[in-house]
Amino acid sequence: MIVNGFAFAGIHCGLKAGERPDLALIVADRPASCAGVFTTNRVVAAPVVQSRALLPGRAQVVVVNSGNANACTGAAGAAAAARTAEIAAEVVGCAPSLVQVASTGVIGAPLPIGRLESGIPLAAEAAAPDGLDRFARAIMTTDTRPKVRVAQGPWTIAGACKGAGMIHPNMATMLAFLVTDAAISPGDLDRIWRAVCDRSFNAITIDGDTSTNDTALLLASGDGPPLQGDDLAAFAALLEPVARELATDIVRDAEGGTKTIELTISGAADQPDARAAAQAVALSPLVKTALFGEDPNWGRIVAAAGRSGAIFEPGAVRLWIGDTLLYDRGVWQGAGAERAAHETMTDAEYAIRLDLGAGEAMRTIYTCDLSPEYVRINADYRS
Amino acid sequence: MIVNGFAFAGIHCGLKAGERPDLALIVADRPASCAGVFTTNRVVAAPVVQSRALLPGRAQVVVVNSGNANACTGAAGAAAAARTAEIAAEVVGCAPSLVQVASTGVIGAPLPIGRLESGIPLAAEAAAPDGLDRFARAIMTTDTRPKVRVAQGPWTIAGACKGAGMIHPNMATMLAFLVTDAAISPGDLDRIWRAVCDRSFNAITIDGDTSTNDTALLLASGDGPPLQGDDLAAFAALLEPVARELATDIVRDAEGGTKTIELTISGAADQPDARAAAQAVALSPLVKTALFGEDPNWGRIVAAAGRSGAIFEPGAVRLWIGDTLLYDRGVWQGAGAERAAHETMTDAEYAIRLDLGAGEAMRTIYTCDLSPEYVRINADYRS
Repeated sequence: MIVNGFAFAGIHCGLKAGERPDLALIVADRPASCAGVFTTNRVVAAPVVQSRALLPGRAQVVVVNSGNANACTGAAGAAAAARTAEIAAEVVGCAPSLVQVASTGVIGAPLPIGRLESGIPLAAEAAAPDGLDRFARAIMTTDTRPKVRVAQGPWTIAGACKGAGMIHPNMATMLAFLVTDAAISPGDLDRIWRAVCDRSFNAITIDGDTSTNDTALLLASGDGPPLQGDDLAAFAALLEPVARELATDIVRDAEGGTKTIELTISGAADQPDARAAAQAVALSPLVKTALFGEDPNWGRIVAAAGRSGAIFEPGAVRLWIGDTLLYDRGVWQGAGAERAAHETMTDAEYAIRLDLGAGEAMRTIYTCDLSPEYVRINADYRS
Repeated sequence: MIVNGFAFAGIHCGLKAGERPDLALIVADRPASCAGVFTTNRVVAAPVVQSRALLPGRAQVVVVNSGNANACTGAAGAAAAARTAEIAAEVVGCAPSLVQVASTGVIGAPLPIGRLESGIPLAAEAAAPDGLDRFARAIMTTDTRPKVRVAQGPWTIAGACKGAGMIHPNMATMLAFLVTDAAISPGDLDRIWRAVCDRSFNAITIDGDTSTNDTALLLASGDGPPLQGDDLAAFAALLEPVARELATDIVRDAEGGTKTIELTISGAADQPDARAAAQAVALSPLVKTALFGEDPNWGRIVAAAGRSGAIFEPGAVRLWIGDTLLYDRGVWQGAGAERAAHETMTDAEYAIRLDLGAGEAMRTIYTCDLSPEYVRINADYRS
């Protein structure tokens, strides 16, 4: 898949052991509109501090390294992020302010900038319009597979992401990079990107932990049809499924996860209530272990919503697993319904819907179960 | 241990299989001052709805059944809770409004009131001043051992609790009952009890799930020395360690838990920030799995605080595990400190302190680790 105006690279520069790719590059033919959504964690990695200050705006290069998060690295980390942008700017021939930098990997270790000094020119040389798959491999840490999605309509949209929980070694979490040929201003791109991220990359939760490095960028080259009037809505409609599938790919690849759940809270009094209830249910260890056990344990789901702070009458609640109504306004629907729900839960992907009966607000998020394997992976002593 | 004015019983009435005790009674010689702290979950069991409406006030009987939570049981559940109070009132010869009722066990199943009809008179007959151990056994569900603590000073305080996470089958969670011979008004007792619960039963977290049935009662018979002036503070000081040890006993007995952690957030800007950071760290699956793995993974602890909403500068944070300063204002303290911290983490109980460097507020809570065993236990299909 080619997106006019962009070239991609993924090479090995020496941050990871062996020959695994650890340096990824996106190079635009000229400054592209760029919008970014970043971690809300108070503890923020140096590349995020540097890059988010430049957006929304324009970008011509995106440099991503895996194998080192450049987080909790103090003044030396900030200098390394600045130097990374300088190297890339020099190689491509643009201003350093047109370079977006992202890092993922081990926290607290100094970024060996020398490997980027030699690596970035090699990556720029290797960059090619058909290089997105190599890019996707070079941003992986504990991911088991590269994650690439594309869409074609009036515009072409392609993207790659990485993530599998905020996991071993640690901080090795969510990064996403999408490009499009749409001709769209940075301001419009930013507005659309924030709304789309809210329903995709910010609608997935594996273990409730956010990282110091989370970054989701969208670049638009302007090589495709210009957007006017209703085009913005059409573009957002083309973009959203790509972002949502990429986000869901992260959940599908969750370490120790065996199920991908689309969880919808409906009938909430307002949007904050819908979000609070969705978070509480999706992050409840008791709910997550029941999902792993394929146990339609409606009591745990209703009780998790009950402690979320969302306002509702317990007697007005309804719960569906797949198409099966399991609990209807205070009444358990019997052993037959429970068997049908259990049957649904043996699938790898299915939906759960909890209606609070308190209003019209709705929120859908994507989550996974909690398995002994998750504990085993994350309890491994790092050294 | 005898507390003047109270008798206790624990018998088998047929709610649990086998001969295991499942009905517990406290009978006071006359109406005692009574204070209660209850679940904040919106989904609340029938006995909680009934009992909390009567407090603070006086109580002469406490009826506790295990094996059935009488939760999500609708109008029939409310009638069963009311009937339980009537039976006990009749047997003891007091008003039904002087009866506190608590239930713990399986959710959603109707409470077989017939077994209480025959059981409560037998329990009242068996009640004896030295019966607290039998009481403690009869309120257990998945607990592995009874939990009893006592203190003697100017007043005698004794109590029992049950809890081991909100766990299989489900809703089988925290109940605590303390008695004292202090002569104290219901209003004073309520004020002291709320403050003490905040630092004991409301300062423990195993998996973040609260139940529909959580209840902590304190009854004062008035047979001991009356409280005047500074006595209230002295009484609270005698009470707090009893409550805290009982609460910590629940963490020590957490199913699948192998470590008991005293987690202190200090240097927070205000109390809500201290609480938010403590909750985020204590409930982070990544922190909890690292505790299980005896891994001094400071990055996970700092990052969990970072997403808590608490305001602090990442460069001002300090972290101790046991007595070892591991992370000092942005600087990792090296491999020697990490080895010392790891050594501490091999203990069954130890302290972690995170200073946010943002103010003077402090919060201490008690939590446990997350083991594969927790997942195994809670993933078991109920049927």
